[in-house]
Amino acid sequence: MKTFELERYTAPDFETAALRGAPDVRALPAPRDGVAPEGYHAMSIFPEYFKVDGRWLLAEESRMDCVPVLENGRIAVREFRNLKKDDRVICGRTEDGSEGIYLHAHGFRMQEEARESFSFRQGHSRESSFSRDYDELYALLRHEREHGKIVWVVGPAFTFDFDARDAFSRVIAAGYAHAILAGNAMATHDLEGAYLHTALGQNIYTQQHQPLGHYNHLDTLNRVRYHGSVADFIRAEGIDNGIIYTCETCGVPYVLAGSIRDDGPLPCVYGDVYRAQDAMWDQIRSATTVICMATMLHSIAVGNMTPSYRVLADGTLRQVYFYCVDISEFTVNKLADRGSLTTRGIVTNAQDFIVNLSKSLGCSGAAK
Amino acid sequence: MKTFELERYTAPDFETAALRGAPDVRALPAPRDGVAPEGYHAMSIFPEYFKVDGRWLLAEESRMDCVPVLENGRIAVREFRNLKKDDRVICGRTEDGSEGIYLHAHGFRMQEEARESFSFRQGHSRESSFSRDYDELYALLRHEREHGKIVWVVGPAFTFDFDARDAFSRVIAAGYAHAILAGNAMATHDLEGAYLHTALGQNIYTQQHQPLGHYNHLDTLNRVRYHGSVADFIRAEGIDNGIIYTCETCGVPYVLAGSIRDDGPLPCVYGDVYRAQDAMWDQIRSATTVICMATMLHSIAVGNMTPSYRVLADGTLRQVYFYCVDISEFTVNKLADRGSLTTRGIVTNAQDFIVNLSKSLGCSGAAK
Amino acid sequence: MKTFELERYTAPDFETAALRGAPDVRALPAPRDGVAPEGYHAMSIFPEYFKVDGRWLLAEESRMDCVPVLENGRIAVREFRNLKKDDRVICGRTEDGSEGIYLHAHGFRMQEEARESFSFRQGHSRESSFSRDYDELYALLRHEREHGKIVWVVGPAFTFDFDARDAFSRVIAAGYAHAILAGNAMATHDLEGAYLHTALGQNIYTQQHQPLGHYNHLDTLNRVRYHGSVADFIRAEGIDNGIIYTCETCGVPYVLAGSIRDDGPLPCVYGDVYRAQDAMWDQIRSATTVICMATMLHSIAVGNMTPSYRVLADGTLRQVYFYCVDISEFTVNKLADRGSLTTRGIVTNAQDFIVNLSKSLGCSGAAK
Amino acid sequence: MKTFELERYTAPDFETAALRGAPDVRALPAPRDGVAPEGYHAMSIFPEYFKVDGRWLLAEESRMDCVPVLENGRIAVREFRNLKKDDRVICGRTEDGSEGIYLHAHGFRMQEEARESFSFRQGHSRESSFSRDYDELYALLRHEREHGKIVWVVGPAFTFDFDARDAFSRVIAAGYAHAILAGNAMATHDLEGAYLHTALGQNIYTQQHQPLGHYNHLDTLNRVRYHGSVADFIRAEGIDNGIIYTCETCGVPYVLAGSIRDDGPLPCVYGDVYRAQDAMWDQIRSATTVICMATMLHSIAVGNMTPSYRVLADGTLRQVYFYCVDISEFTVNKLADRGSLTTRGIVTNAQDFIVNLSKSLGCSGAAK
Repeated sequence: MKTFELERYTAPDFETAALRGAPDVRALPAPRDGVAPEGYHAMSIFPEYFKVDGRWLLAEESRMDCVPVLENGRIAVREFRNLKKDDRVICGRTEDGSEGIYLHAHGFRMQEEARESFSFRQGHSRESSFSRDYDELYALLRHEREHGKIVWVVGPAFTFDFDARDAFSRVIAAGYAHAILAGNAMATHDLEGAYLHTALGQNIYTQQHQPLGHYNHLDTLNRVRYHGSVADFIRAEGIDNGIIYTCETCGVPYVLAGSIRDDGPLPCVYGDVYRAQDAMWDQIRSATTVICMATMLHSIAVGNMTPSYRVLADGTLRQVYFYCVDISEFTVNKLADRGSLTTRGIVTNAQDFIVNLSKSLGCSGAAK
Repeated sequence: MKTFELERYTAPDFETAALRGAPDVRALPAPRDGVAPEGYHAMSIFPEYFKVDGRWLLAEESRMDCVPVLENGRIAVREFRNLKKDDRVICGRTEDGSEGIYLHAHGFRMQEEARESFSFRQGHSRESSFSRDYDELYALLRHEREHGKIVWVVGPAFTFDFDARDAFSRVIAAGYAHAILAGNAMATHDLEGAYLHTALGQNIYTQQHQPLGHYNHLDTLNRVRYHGSVADFIRAEGIDNGIIYTCETCGVPYVLAGSIRDDGPLPCVYGDVYRAQDAMWDQIRSATTVICMATMLHSIAVGNMTPSYRVLADGTLRQVYFYCVDISEFTVNKLADRGSLTTRGIVTNAQDFIVNLSKSLGCSGAAK
Repeated sequence: MKTFELERYTAPDFETAALRGAPDVRALPAPRDGVAPEGYHAMSIFPEYFKVDGRWLLAEESRMDCVPVLENGRIAVREFRNLKKDDRVICGRTEDGSEGIYLHAHGFRMQEEARESFSFRQGHSRESSFSRDYDELYALLRHEREHGKIVWVVGPAFTFDFDARDAFSRVIAAGYAHAILAGNAMATHDLEGAYLHTALGQNIYTQQHQPLGHYNHLDTLNRVRYHGSVADFIRAEGIDNGIIYTCETCGVPYVLAGSIRDDGPLPCVYGDVYRAQDAMWDQIRSATTVICMATMLHSIAVGNMTPSYRVLADGTLRQVYFYCVDISEFTVNKLADRGSLTTRGIVTNAQDFIVNLSKSLGCSGAAK
Repeated sequence: MKTFELERYTAPDFETAALRGAPDVRALPAPRDGVAPEGYHAMSIFPEYFKVDGRWLLAEESRMDCVPVLENGRIAVREFRNLKKDDRVICGRTEDGSEGIYLHAHGFRMQEEARESFSFRQGHSRESSFSRDYDELYALLRHEREHGKIVWVVGPAFTFDFDARDAFSRVIAAGYAHAILAGNAMATHDLEGAYLHTALGQNIYTQQHQPLGHYNHLDTLNRVRYHGSVADFIRAEGIDNGIIYTCETCGVPYVLAGSIRDDGPLPCVYGDVYRAQDAMWDQIRSATTVICMATMLHSIAVGNMTPSYRVLADGTLRQVYFYCVDISEFTVNKLADRGSLTTRGIVTNAQDFIVNLSKSLGCSGAAK
């Protein structure tokens, strides 16, 4: 069994002439709420340092396409929509220090062999070989269960499959999921499976259509809405299996973002997508591994907000791993194309992926 | 050139013994805001009649998976989330009249030849022949420009293509679009094209990367937000081309729904997806032709809310046409699988589709 | 563990008035070699009976789009290209007995529940649930290992994956493959893996590129050609692992068909595709289960020649099972659309499919 | 209208010290028919020079993965299978001259702007912008009609579409096709369209199924086989439209390669795929533009044999353009990934591609 080792981070050498001579960053006030000043700097997925009062400050969090704000001597990272008038937004579009901004893309040194082999796996297709990616993922997850935070980002359809729904429940119960980000549909399908043993009216194992089965997902939604919350629904209706049930039982937080295709929705769904983004960000900002599975919309949303590094409690930096699993090369390559050594794509059906993963991690027996 | 003719609607024969003897519908009060009573009826895409006080009332609007509410002697159709406590929700899950509910799936008689040939075109793939579908679509659009309402539902990516963006602008300017439903990304990409001649930083014709081009979409968003509205941005920055510009100029309404993957967003984007649904429904409820192009999320959302018929001002019923154009068979078949004779799928790249359509409709010269 | 049971075959009732009164079939001489007479009958995948001298004869073999030839009082089935001048070709295009030809599509009675659930699984997509299909397949294969003949039809690319290549080797070694149909590329990639530990020059586990690795598949081909046969290559070069090695070791026949994209080819590849068809047919005519995996060309070829039934030594009929496993819905649906209850499609990456299958069948330890 | 200009070729500078000091190439005898000596050199798509008797000889033809043979003071390029015992095969695996072999990858200098923009269009997806590619393609084809040789490589399915079949016929009639490479299925479908107005039994415009239409492609094949040749069939049956008809009428050669999925086949189909390769190579070796459309098998086959350059009658070198048009990113990227500036991929449905192309080139009226 492969064991997992994090790469060590090497900070930039700020004693080079160029960086020593670099000026302080320039910060300009936001002209209005929600608007950045001309020439604002936008963040990347990599560690960035900003020279303030002659000292290089690391942005302790990052989020692509957000802006750095100088606040109480620290660098905060903010979405445009959350800027307030007069926030001191750092300006400058160079990344080499010449405006006091330094982007450090290669802080994590990969061994030469790993780097080379990685580069050959960049373009992903159905014909890419994933054996090593799987072994690395399993080793990573065993490490992260104890020492990191694993966030899953999941689409709805894999819950139609009996084995896949069961496998993911086991993965959660076994401690391999510290938060789940999804939409109204995933939770609704899963709860329909638990409540009526169907998905969109078909028995989740035999696939036999139930009489009037097309009412089942609406009945599930209506019943949860009647009880007022998912937790009350689970209690009152005696639900005892499934993804959401396991999350509730094991205390794994889940964030459900609304979308324009929703029926219902379930009571805990965020109708406002920007509040949903905030709730997702609350989970992602402490994540160390993110696995996106069978959803393009949520994967892109989370891919945009996941940095390549994390600052730990002791001040050291570690890598953040990002996986995208989808049957469509289009989706996988869209996500995997982030230029980071810690981004991986796997082209397959999510059903088989999660069943394989559950077996390989030995997640037996935990879920019902 | 093919001319277009609507099928005539044949109302049900309510003088059959079964329907004459049918009871009045049963209506039960909603137990809470946003919750339907047990046994509620859910609507379909087809015309449905409800027996009230001995008379069969047509639901003048329909929306799949919503519930009929008896209100002032008429049938209103309501989303679960918009139900109010004590709304009188019609209950019953039969559709043959035995509970006072009659669903009329075959009111529009197709000629035998058309029906048969239609059934062979049900499963769509890259290998389906679309010549006749194109001819029918062009004839339909010429008819609808004068006598109907054409709503386009469009994804973001086709705006990256110079010809496609230009073609769609011409289609709008020529009167073939009465409303547009899209997301923040489509409008942002289009406005970047107009403002900076790029899409995500690449020149929209030569594809050459602009220096610092990855800032361009953020700069566009920030600039619109600075001006406060798209209209003010267009005026202040001298924008003179593109899809949104053409909509503004020609008075074509557009609804932009927010999503969790948004940057910005633009000022007019609905952050709350359920308010976005309401705004989309405001356009769809009077639509007679809907064309979904290169977006799965928005296509599903609109497919769910588009009925197969419309009641005209004179009380007669006509068909509503629904097209889904996408390069992915998966998306097209997901949408086309609605069981209605007026639903069509076309598997192709949206760029070529819209360029072809613009040329075939003779939409030359109108857009800049 | 699910056990497997074949459906019982019910022969047609030839005592009905219609069939009793049916005339003998009409047979006309082929006008030339390779040419059928006008009005020839073409076979289907279903059992067909022909009235000859007042008795109904079953065509003991069938092959879609081939013609029945009356020969020594029996019905032979022949490809057009193999017809000889004056062969007595049965003519008639009805299937209800009125020309002495009776097609029996529903001889295998499925239980009602199974039939219904099957029909809902007809259209396959990435979102179809495959749990039950997997369980049924595993039960089927355990049955067929002892009592049937399992033929695998495989594409080249899954051999790039270390785990998948290993898993398929184990499946063969464990007795779950009685013949393999493939092309030059599959065998070449597999032999490169065994000979040089690469696939197209990349290490099959680490994916690291070998120096001058693009020569590796040519070197493998050239070396096999030098030795004159695959068996001699294996012996002389000490090959001790892989799919072809396992076939050779375990005595599992494999047919390699040539194609216009081939390099080499390997010595045993059929350059003439019609001779290749004949060699494939020699395996398929006794197959009871066929599994096509990750190849469109070979899957279509074999799908065309696989009937839905087999006549056993004791004269009884049994079903022939046909699976198509591919990551592309387009391919799966193209193949699965054969109208037989024994045709199944699974949409996934072949790598995960075969790894899962090998584990689920307990094929451990057998391959190297 | 864009006009087209070929890039000028710059030969290597053989007067550098390294190349002047380079040794003559080493040639070793083939040990057997069809087998190269150890250490053989394999060709690429780029111009390669070989030092023989102190002089650098250009290989006037090239073909990837074939071997250079020294013959009568010239460099011939040969498939492994066509090697004869004692052929003098050039050996060496360096490309910098140090073994007398020099590969010249950058002989065609692209303008900086074009080169840069090209590199951004390398990865192709449904979201790539193709406007400029189309304009360049149309300009190229206008040039090549007079000054080059355009070879089309086409799959079968687009012939199901009335407009597409008609459009391609016009393109051929207008002089934009100098040879066509395809398979048995394309020609059979096209001839069924001309003979019975159906494709696999469906009317090619209305899509209505003909009674017993599943016999139509077999009847077409059988009838052509009866007449003995396509030309005789066309004459005897009064065929007056379609792709094959236009080829026959306009004297455009077509090569039909057999495959294991063939019915029939048509009389002129190559049953031996290696003889088919030879016939395809006879067309490709003089091609200056190759367009592959909606076929993976034939596209890969031709992609493997098409070099990036051509030696003209006057001894100068020009570029060879290679296009791959397919609805699947997987296919397009597989083909486009050849590292040459003259390789282009377009992701769309071939039906729309060819209709657009025919209109844009003004190919009206020529075909029936």
